[in-house]
Amino acid sequence: MITSVEWREGAVRFLDQSRLPFEEVYVETSDHHRVAEAIRALEIRGAPAIGIAAAYAAVLGVRASVPQSLEEAAKALQVASALLSATRPTAVNLFAALDRLKRRAATCPETSVRGFEECLLAEACAIHDEDREACRRIGEFGAALLPPHAVLLTHCNTGALATGGEGTALNVIRKAAAGAGVREVYVGETRPLLQGSRLTMWELQRDGIPATLITDGTAASILRDRGVMAVIVGADRIVANGDTANKIGTYSLAVLARHHGVRFYVAAPVSTIDLETPEGRSIPIEERPSTEVTHVGRHAITVPGAKVCAPAFDVTPASLIDAIITDGGVATAPYGPALRAFVDRSHPGRGVSR
Amino acid sequence: MITSVEWREGAVRFLDQSRLPFEEVYVETSDHHRVAEAIRALEIRGAPAIGIAAAYAAVLGVRASVPQSLEEAAKALQVASALLSATRPTAVNLFAALDRLKRRAATCPETSVRGFEECLLAEACAIHDEDREACRRIGEFGAALLPPHAVLLTHCNTGALATGGEGTALNVIRKAAAGAGVREVYVGETRPLLQGSRLTMWELQRDGIPATLITDGTAASILRDRGVMAVIVGADRIVANGDTANKIGTYSLAVLARHHGVRFYVAAPVSTIDLETPEGRSIPIEERPSTEVTHVGRHAITVPGAKVCAPAFDVTPASLIDAIITDGGVATAPYGPALRAFVDRSHPGRGVSR
Repeated sequence: MITSVEWREGAVRFLDQSRLPFEEVYVETSDHHRVAEAIRALEIRGAPAIGIAAAYAAVLGVRASVPQSLEEAAKALQVASALLSATRPTAVNLFAALDRLKRRAATCPETSVRGFEECLLAEACAIHDEDREACRRIGEFGAALLPPHAVLLTHCNTGALATGGEGTALNVIRKAAAGAGVREVYVGETRPLLQGSRLTMWELQRDGIPATLITDGTAASILRDRGVMAVIVGADRIVANGDTANKIGTYSLAVLARHHGVRFYVAAPVSTIDLETPEGRSIPIEERPSTEVTHVGRHAITVPGAKVCAPAFDVTPASLIDAIITDGGVATAPYGPALRAFVDRSHPGRGVSR
Repeated sequence: MITSVEWREGAVRFLDQSRLPFEEVYVETSDHHRVAEAIRALEIRGAPAIGIAAAYAAVLGVRASVPQSLEEAAKALQVASALLSATRPTAVNLFAALDRLKRRAATCPETSVRGFEECLLAEACAIHDEDREACRRIGEFGAALLPPHAVLLTHCNTGALATGGEGTALNVIRKAAAGAGVREVYVGETRPLLQGSRLTMWELQRDGIPATLITDGTAASILRDRGVMAVIVGADRIVANGDTANKIGTYSLAVLARHHGVRFYVAAPVSTIDLETPEGRSIPIEERPSTEVTHVGRHAITVPGAKVCAPAFDVTPASLIDAIITDGGVATAPYGPALRAFVDRSHPGRGVSR
């Protein structure tokens, strides 16, 4: 299995996803600023992977400050957290992971700086371990929803690259392929940054799962003509009523799926649920640099000076989602009570504050 | 105004659209094989422009054969027609233009080879002139449907580049901008060949019309959040019941427009109407080379060996179209009688045979 992010003896090691599928380059750094930059530049991407990387990076930030007291260590955690929080605004896992570290810091019984740092690292590792387990459970819960030899459509990348384990939506596909079989997976290329063509096609090819690449505008025809049974996507933030922010183009697929009577599933760990935000319209949507639309790689594709609208995400209303597949179970509408129960069961007393 | 295709003293001169917006290169050739290749490679594109270029190229083909009799000239027309017909299967204007030349050949009163060739050239020029006039009328009819300061969304390129005049859907936008004003035009980039980002943005920038480029997957959010009043697209073939083949991604926009209560207009000359085909499912849909999806320009964007589904067009059912704007007038549902009336009025006795 691919390991997108991991802790390695005092450093974070990550696979630079911006260079895939052409170069498989791993970066190892003990500089939390470098990790923050990697998140901002989408070298590390995918809501769960961002959360894990940020947690490890926060530990690096504390260590780098060489604190002389617990107070200094706690202050360093605040500073590193603030830096990491500012990288990307939409994926809630980032904030949730940093909040978990802060809560752990507040309750850590250690009295030495070293013990405090160990305590934080253990929490970061726990976040990673839990995500690995969450992926496993999401895969199983999701695969159980699919018929044998399913024809599926997915968007962006929700695999091992995007998580600390084997993926969310893509792990549903993996588990289905390993079980009752998958006849075909249509993969939307996911402009502007092409996570579908670059990353999901790479993962599916490695796993020998039959996959067909399409441009995003081709999805409507595929949903009408190719016997697609379900669209499965991931999530960057699922709010209290079930509205879901995910990669730009997801909302389009949800409308198209409903129009064609195709099921639309969201797969994400409970750590992606944000109960503090009541509905989708309150989710901050990141606007990406216009060069991501005016260029493909370094290759310009439009006139100089073109005005661009480049949101990284869109919001799919809960009403268009047939089920939300989490490690806590599968929720169907109305989503509010089920999502709250998943969160309560998963992390008692958890609450994200920003 | 840009002239995408024209007749110049025994040659066809065309603007190589595959190199826009970075290079403005005109090609002049008296070789009809070269024109056929230009159509196949999308150096000349847009249903009306293809029809015009094919008509001129057929004349070149007859001349190149240096016929010694009217029979030889007629035979050369058949051969050139067959070559040109085989370039692209979906846009009906191609076949309609070649059929017009053949009908003209059959009724041409000239008795000399030279007179016969002049007769064909006059017909090709008439096709071009009529398209120029059709564009003008489409622009006027369409602009009358739009409110002042409209916010619009379009797809692909339907401008001067795609036609013999100022465009179809894009001329509606031009005329609206020159009249009651256009506040903003959202332009879908139109993967895989990026006619939106490369060509439509180029035309709109030249005309000083406010335009914002978006990826195709962003259209759903734009239709929900930005006050878009209408989606306006062109057509490669409108069949007897109003079902319309157009650039891949169009059907997606039609579903999204309906979902958001936004009007969806098709703008095309009467020469794009194909009464011989009863409904959309019978339209042949061209599959393009997979490299158009696996690459952007020469830049690979996915794993080697990726399987691809690359239809050039999709079919929008008449039920999702609010109006079809032609040079013969504006049709609304049920489309059958109105389309037939437009064709009858425009070209008495016309019928496309393939």
